[in-house]
Amino acid sequence: MPTTIQPAAPTRPANAPPELQTLYAPVAAELAEVETVLRAELQSDYPFVDELVRYGCLLGGKRMRPALLLLAAKAAGGRTTRAHITLAAVVEMIHTATLVHDDVLDEANMRRHLATVNARWDNEASVLLGDFLFTHAFYLASTLDNVLGCRLIGRATNIVCEGELRQKGSRGDFELSERDYLKIVEAKTAELTAVSCRLGALFTGADDGLIEQMDGFGRDLGIAFQIADDLLDVLGEEKATGKSLGTDLQKQKPTLPIIRALELATGSDRERLLALVGSDDRRTESLAPYLRRYDAIAYTRQRAIGFAHAARRRLNGLQPSHSRDVLAAMTEFVVTRSM
Amino acid sequence: MPTTIQPAAPTRPANAPPELQTLYAPVAAELAEVETVLRAELQSDYPFVDELVRYGCLLGGKRMRPALLLLAAKAAGGRTTRAHITLAAVVEMIHTATLVHDDVLDEANMRRHLATVNARWDNEASVLLGDFLFTHAFYLASTLDNVLGCRLIGRATNIVCEGELRQKGSRGDFELSERDYLKIVEAKTAELTAVSCRLGALFTGADDGLIEQMDGFGRDLGIAFQIADDLLDVLGEEKATGKSLGTDLQKQKPTLPIIRALELATGSDRERLLALVGSDDRRTESLAPYLRRYDAIAYTRQRAIGFAHAARRRLNGLQPSHSRDVLAAMTEFVVTRSM
Repeated sequence: MPTTIQPAAPTRPANAPPELQTLYAPVAAELAEVETVLRAELQSDYPFVDELVRYGCLLGGKRMRPALLLLAAKAAGGRTTRAHITLAAVVEMIHTATLVHDDVLDEANMRRHLATVNARWDNEASVLLGDFLFTHAFYLASTLDNVLGCRLIGRATNIVCEGELRQKGSRGDFELSERDYLKIVEAKTAELTAVSCRLGALFTGADDGLIEQMDGFGRDLGIAFQIADDLLDVLGEEKATGKSLGTDLQKQKPTLPIIRALELATGSDRERLLALVGSDDRRTESLAPYLRRYDAIAYTRQRAIGFAHAARRRLNGLQPSHSRDVLAAMTEFVVTRSM
Repeated sequence: MPTTIQPAAPTRPANAPPELQTLYAPVAAELAEVETVLRAELQSDYPFVDELVRYGCLLGGKRMRPALLLLAAKAAGGRTTRAHITLAAVVEMIHTATLVHDDVLDEANMRRHLATVNARWDNEASVLLGDFLFTHAFYLASTLDNVLGCRLIGRATNIVCEGELRQKGSRGDFELSERDYLKIVEAKTAELTAVSCRLGALFTGADDGLIEQMDGFGRDLGIAFQIADDLLDVLGEEKATGKSLGTDLQKQKPTLPIIRALELATGSDRERLLALVGSDDRRTESLAPYLRRYDAIAYTRQRAIGFAHAARRRLNGLQPSHSRDVLAAMTEFVVTRSM
C-alpha cells in the first residue's frame, strides 16, 4: 500500500538534506566511490578550465540520479560493479550539464546556494562548461566494454534535449494541454531518471521484465519530481530551495498550476488570466487569486503524488530489501522536498 | 614534393565551392549517403524542434570532416563500410554542434550566408540545438557494435571543448605565446579532423602505424586550417566567407597575426599595440600598420603553409590512389580558401 504523502514540506537550507543522506545508506559506499570518480574526472591541467569544471562538480547537488542507479541495481537483486560506479558518475555529469545550460536559459543567478556559472563567470563559460560535461560523460561511458551503456545514455540524453526544445517551443503557449505538458516533463526530466534505473538493473544482469519495471519506476518518479519542482517554482522560498525561483513564469513556461487554472476558468476570468500570464506583471502574487479559485495548487500536488504512487506500485513484486524500501521512501521525498 | 601553395584566394560566394566538389569525387557516392543519414537523423515529430534541427543541418557546410574520414579510409587502402557512413555523419553533427555554440559565444549573425541560429531565433535556441546535435551524434555513434567509435569520438570531442575553454581563459591575454596558441588550435580544431582521419583508417582495419599516420595528417591539416581561418577573420570579406568576421578581435582572442606582431614589437611600439588590442578601437584597420610593420600576415600565412606541408608529408609512403591525391590537394585548399 502506498504510504501517506505529506503535502506540506519542511524547509531546509542544507545542500544535501539529512533525509537524503539517511536514504542513501544502502549505497553510501558506492556513492563515495562515485564522488571519487567525479573529482578525478572533472579536473584539467589548465587553471581556468580546472577552476570551472571543479565548480561545475559542486553544482550537481543531491546526487539523486547516481543514487537511483545504484539502488535500482540492488533492488533488482543484483550486486553493484565497477560499471555501475562509472555509469552513476556519467548520469550525474549529464544532469549537471543540463543544469548549467538551464541556468543560462533561465538567466538564473543561484543554484544549490551557490552563484550559477553564468552569474559568477558568464554565459559563455556556462555553454562551454556544459559542453565539457556532456562530452566528458559520453567519453566516460565509452570506457566500458559494452556499447549498450553509451547507446542508452546517448538516446536518453537526446530525448532530454528534445524535451527542452519542445519546452522552448511551448514558451508563451498557455493553451498547452496537461497531456502535452506531461509529455514534455517526461522527456526533459523523467527520461534521465528512467535510464538511471534501467542501467542499474541492466548491468546486474536482471531480466527484461525487471529492467522495464525499474525504468517505469524511474520514469514515474521523475515526472512526480518535475511536477513538484514546478510547484516549488511557484510556491517555494529561495532561501530554502537555494535557487532562483519564479523563473518559469518569467520565462513564460506553461506549468501545471497555470494550465489547470486555465483549463477550468471560463469567459472573462479566463481572458483576464491569459492576459495576466502574457503581461509584464506575471508575478506569482498576481496569479495567486486565480490559482486559489480553481484549486490549482492542490490539483498539481495531487498529480505529483499520483505519479509518486504509481512509481511506488512499480516496486511491487520486487524481493524485499533495504534498497527497495529506500526507493519507496524516495517516492515520498520527491513530492515533500523543499529543495 | 609539396606543390606550390597560392597565398591569394579567389572569392566564391557559393556555400559548397566547386573546387571542393571536384576534390570530393572519389567519395561522392559515400558523401551522398552521409547526407541521407543526416537528413534522416536530424528531424523531429515536433514542428518547432524539426524546423530548428533541419536548419542546423544546413549550417554545416563544407562537409570537410566527413570527406576526410572517407578519403582517409580509401587512402589507407581500405574500403568504406556502413560504419564509415555513420561515423562521417557523427563527426559532421559534432562539428555543427560546436559551430552553433560558437556563434552564441561570438555573437555572430551570419554563417554560410545564412542567419545564425542565435540571430534567427535566440541564444537559447542555439544552446539547445547544439546540445541536441551533440547528444544525437553520440547516440548515432553508439549504434555501431564497436565501442571504440564512441570512445574516440567522446575523447576527441571532450578535448575540443577543453580547447574552447582554454581559448576562453586566454581571452584578452595578448602575452599568449605562439606555442600555447598552437596548442589551443590543435585542441579546439585539429583534434576533430585528426579523429576523423583516424576513424576512417581504423574502421578499414588499417595497422596501427597507418592509423597514426592518418591521425597526424588530419592534425596538421586541422592546424593549418585554423591558422588560415584566423587569418580570414582579419583579412577576409564577409561576402566571400559568408560569415561574420572580425569577431576574434572583438572578443579579444589572441590570434597568430597579433601574437607575432607583439612578439617582435618592443618598447613604446609594443605598448601602443597592447593598448590598442585592449581598447574599444580594436578594429582590424587600426591594427593594420602594426601587422604590416612586423610582416605578421605573411608570417602567419607561412605558418599555415608550413603545417599544410607537414600534413602533405604525412601522406608519403601511402599507396598511390586518387584518394591520396585528393588529401594532398586538400592541404592546398585549406590555406588558399576564401570561405
